[in-house]
Amino acid sequence: MEEKDSEFFMRKALEQAKLAYEAGEIPVGAVLVSDGKIITKAHNQTELLHDATAHAEMLAITSGCAHFNSKYLSECSLYVTLEPCPMCAAALAWTQIKHIVWAASDEKKGCSLYHPGLLHPASQLEKGILGEESTELLKQFFKERRQKNF
Amino acid sequence: MEEKDSEFFMRKALEQAKLAYEAGEIPVGAVLVSDGKIITKAHNQTELLHDATAHAEMLAITSGCAHFNSKYLSECSLYVTLEPCPMCAAALAWTQIKHIVWAASDEKKGCSLYHPGLLHPASQLEKGILGEESTELLKQFFKERRQKNF
Repeated sequence: MEEKDSEFFMRKALEQAKLAYEAGEIPVGAVLVSDGKIITKAHNQTELLHDATAHAEMLAITSGCAHFNSKYLSECSLYVTLEPCPMCAAALAWTQIKHIVWAASDEKKGCSLYHPGLLHPASQLEKGILGEESTELLKQFFKERRQKNF
Repeated sequence: MEEKDSEFFMRKALEQAKLAYEAGEIPVGAVLVSDGKIITKAHNQTELLHDATAHAEMLAITSGCAHFNSKYLSECSLYVTLEPCPMCAAALAWTQIKHIVWAASDEKKGCSLYHPGLLHPASQLEKGILGEESTELLKQFFKERRQKNF
């Protein structure tokens, strides 16, 4: 049951990543879930907003905080299609989020490459749900981008 | 001349920190400077916005990116009254900012306590400008807050 739920929410995050892809953004999507319900959906918008901080996770956090009128998301789960970067990991730590699930690992910029204390010690982690689909989407995006540049 | 400039801009950041103080926010302020001119001023607004990501640096970055219509701030200097946390350090790295100046060190949450690669290798660092004034303001804030809680 739990596994099915995780896959359901990650599929919603992947739909967000596909929206990013179609908009020419690096395809990363996220959904924030509380009490079994999706509170907010977001995808990377760094190009559209010309804002280095507009990662899917950051937009989901800001939107989730607005929803709950709180700096804390300690009852929430974040499903994100790519391992958070250090900025997003540290932002998630500030929110004291309960549960973080990511699909693909990021071997170049993922928070695992940095200090383990970037994430909050109380946050439960789950990795690899729909990881192959997310990786495939990212590979396809960068392949197309390279082809356009030549 | 350079030292006077740094102090001038840090004093503007301290004015922002004082605005945060008056609004009941942890007193941290920042100014973003390009070509000798202040592009944007910001102070911590996590309480007002109920947003864990609304640190002075993050607000300055988003506003600066909007000003230049660019994800990059590679010609800018950020003056901030407290050492950036890992979230803000990693966000500054994404912008490839040229120059970061902070006043007080943060011995509990400062980015120096984490991985050195959180900051961009091309960013020049300067520390300690008006550090005592910033530390004093923070101490006063937390002292008052403790008194209110008892």
